[in-house]
Amino acid sequence: MSLSLPDCREMDSADPLARHRDAFALPERIIYLDGNSLGALPKLAAQRVHDVISRQWGQDLIKSWNLHDWIGAPARVGGKIARLIGAKPNEVMAADSTSLNVFKTLHAALRLRPDRRIILSDEANFPTDLYMAQGLAELLGSSHEIRIVPLDRIATALTEEIAVLMLTEVDYRTGRLHDMAALTKAAHDKRAIALWDLAHSAGAFPVDLNGCGADFAVGCGYKYLNGGPGAPAFIFVAERWHDTAEQPLFGWMGHEAPFAFDLDYRPRPGIHRFLVGTPPILSLTALEAGLDLFADVDLADLRRKSGALGDLFIALVEQELPGSGLVLASPRKAAERGSQVSFRHPEGYPIMQALIARGVIGDFRAPDILRFGLAPLYVSFADIWNAVAHLKAVMAGMEWQRPEFRRRAAVT
Amino acid sequence: MSLSLPDCREMDSADPLARHRDAFALPERIIYLDGNSLGALPKLAAQRVHDVISRQWGQDLIKSWNLHDWIGAPARVGGKIARLIGAKPNEVMAADSTSLNVFKTLHAALRLRPDRRIILSDEANFPTDLYMAQGLAELLGSSHEIRIVPLDRIATALTEEIAVLMLTEVDYRTGRLHDMAALTKAAHDKRAIALWDLAHSAGAFPVDLNGCGADFAVGCGYKYLNGGPGAPAFIFVAERWHDTAEQPLFGWMGHEAPFAFDLDYRPRPGIHRFLVGTPPILSLTALEAGLDLFADVDLADLRRKSGALGDLFIALVEQELPGSGLVLASPRKAAERGSQVSFRHPEGYPIMQALIARGVIGDFRAPDILRFGLAPLYVSFADIWNAVAHLKAVMAGMEWQRPEFRRRAAVT
Repeated sequence: MSLSLPDCREMDSADPLARHRDAFALPERIIYLDGNSLGALPKLAAQRVHDVISRQWGQDLIKSWNLHDWIGAPARVGGKIARLIGAKPNEVMAADSTSLNVFKTLHAALRLRPDRRIILSDEANFPTDLYMAQGLAELLGSSHEIRIVPLDRIATALTEEIAVLMLTEVDYRTGRLHDMAALTKAAHDKRAIALWDLAHSAGAFPVDLNGCGADFAVGCGYKYLNGGPGAPAFIFVAERWHDTAEQPLFGWMGHEAPFAFDLDYRPRPGIHRFLVGTPPILSLTALEAGLDLFADVDLADLRRKSGALGDLFIALVEQELPGSGLVLASPRKAAERGSQVSFRHPEGYPIMQALIARGVIGDFRAPDILRFGLAPLYVSFADIWNAVAHLKAVMAGMEWQRPEFRRRAAVT
Repeated sequence: MSLSLPDCREMDSADPLARHRDAFALPERIIYLDGNSLGALPKLAAQRVHDVISRQWGQDLIKSWNLHDWIGAPARVGGKIARLIGAKPNEVMAADSTSLNVFKTLHAALRLRPDRRIILSDEANFPTDLYMAQGLAELLGSSHEIRIVPLDRIATALTEEIAVLMLTEVDYRTGRLHDMAALTKAAHDKRAIALWDLAHSAGAFPVDLNGCGADFAVGCGYKYLNGGPGAPAFIFVAERWHDTAEQPLFGWMGHEAPFAFDLDYRPRPGIHRFLVGTPPILSLTALEAGLDLFADVDLADLRRKSGALGDLFIALVEQELPGSGLVLASPRKAAERGSQVSFRHPEGYPIMQALIARGVIGDFRAPDILRFGLAPLYVSFADIWNAVAHLKAVMAGMEWQRPEFRRRAAVT
């Protein structure tokens, strides 16, 4: 039985998250399937940032650090992320970039296993995580090693030598989802520390860090949390490590008494020691607005819808574009996917440019991946129908062969 | 001959920078002398951030990385800072926090002197710089040492053992200005690397990093550059070190080809390798607006006015408040001061709170410093008259004795 646009509209009518779409300022005639690269603009973010600039910065000036609790923003925003990732509010801070948070948590993790030297990761990890590990390993001296194995070899590579298992839960190219509970347990069985990057998880579906026993985690503010371009990232440290975990970026915001201006560093107890410099208030404000949109969202609805959107996308591509050469790169089972679907095609780059020219915005990841992010708060089932209709037109009309679609941009 | 309010108004009439005041959204009935803690709001910043949020993020979404050159923002904004600090545009990046930039530059500097182990600084340096050095020294192993000496002992402490001389040009408490040219030369005479923190310099008066031969520098975006609360900081690496300087925070934005998604880190040539994670676009936008206000400012005017404002403040306190117990903590000579004046008083904290209650906003630094920042772009000579008149009233009426002025806030 074939799927139709009315079927998709019916799914939208039954969607408990459909009402959230109006909270976003989506452009007209655009189908936005790139929320895994930059989340859409929450209308609330524009209002809040305007208020913070005009009233707080402009009128209350320096007093705002106390008056509007700017100083508490990293912990307050972190506390709002906590619910989405299965953490306690006092275990999460919004701060710095994902890269820097990898550095901090990875170092803390290595310090907890001083007798071991190997960081284990997989080939599908996001490069900046691996780069930060390389930089840290060089800094610590030659005896540390980053061991990068193919995806299916992690379990066998987890030996008693491993200090830290560092993985990104969702593969940024294929959307394949790691089994966080099983891998964390496998790491712990070998006394390794488990560090998770939730860049493509937080805000897309519920994560259960504490349920899985994760030790450390980091993640991104500008993808499914809709925090705006270059939004602050987040950092999670399990409460059981709060007394012992240490990171080497000794900034005044991690000091026990930042405004005592002592000459010696004394780390503040708990998660605060993972802060470094002065928090970026404008960016934190936009991120907090994005998070406030999740306040009344049932996280089980997020999971159901992100799976259903992906299932629909896959089914429609197979129904509407048989023989197109598009090969599914994502797991077929929703339970094994994050909130995206990806397809491989040798002409992936120009195909994606042709789609973008039609107003369907996904992105391309080398060498051949067309990637479609499915943000459950603002993507509709009808969007998926229309996106696949455009994809069908691009392929049928060979639109991607036009020379202008082959030009590479600085950012892809 | 005594100074009067009409004298001050005459100085304002003759001030070539007076026309810039209107570019800032200053609150009514407030005299803002805390621009060395948080610069005032440029009206342009509110407009620009609104545009970036509503049009670029909201409408152009992910395409803005190319379309509006978000990806080029750290270098573009850095290039605008360069003129203010005597650097070439390709030597400066806007990125991360001052603390993190200390970590990066200090590590790069230490790598250039592998045969040496000592970082030399003074007691007046800002604590977070010293903390970051402590964290880095711990990370590198026990053989590195941070040697902190009294201000007047730096020259004698500069020996052939010193790897890096790390100083903040302007003392955040007293406003005392280091002689950058002489100290950089003294460091180089001993083959030490010179690293300068320009937190209280950039935007307050012209700095001449290349004229002084400085090797590395860092500085703050939210003070005299008026970039907004927690604005990105900046980092300077002298061109002669571009081929050899290395920093250990290997993030994808420092990679030669960030969007090739290679698994191995290869640093991009030049200053770009000092970038780490995704740049915070909203915060960079506000900072860039602040910098654009300097485009037609003659930097010699900045220096003349910041000196004259301080001279006036000192003269008026001595004229209007004899025997008040306020002791000048700043150098008396303008050429030896940054753009602030500070006074000591045992009751400094409640005195400052009483002043703030009257709308004169300076700040307090432990143990006994009243600090007044004099941002030359928006502080007038009449402001100084009025500030001192309020200070006189606070002291004459013993207003500071009220209990509410003794309560300490989280941020001071």
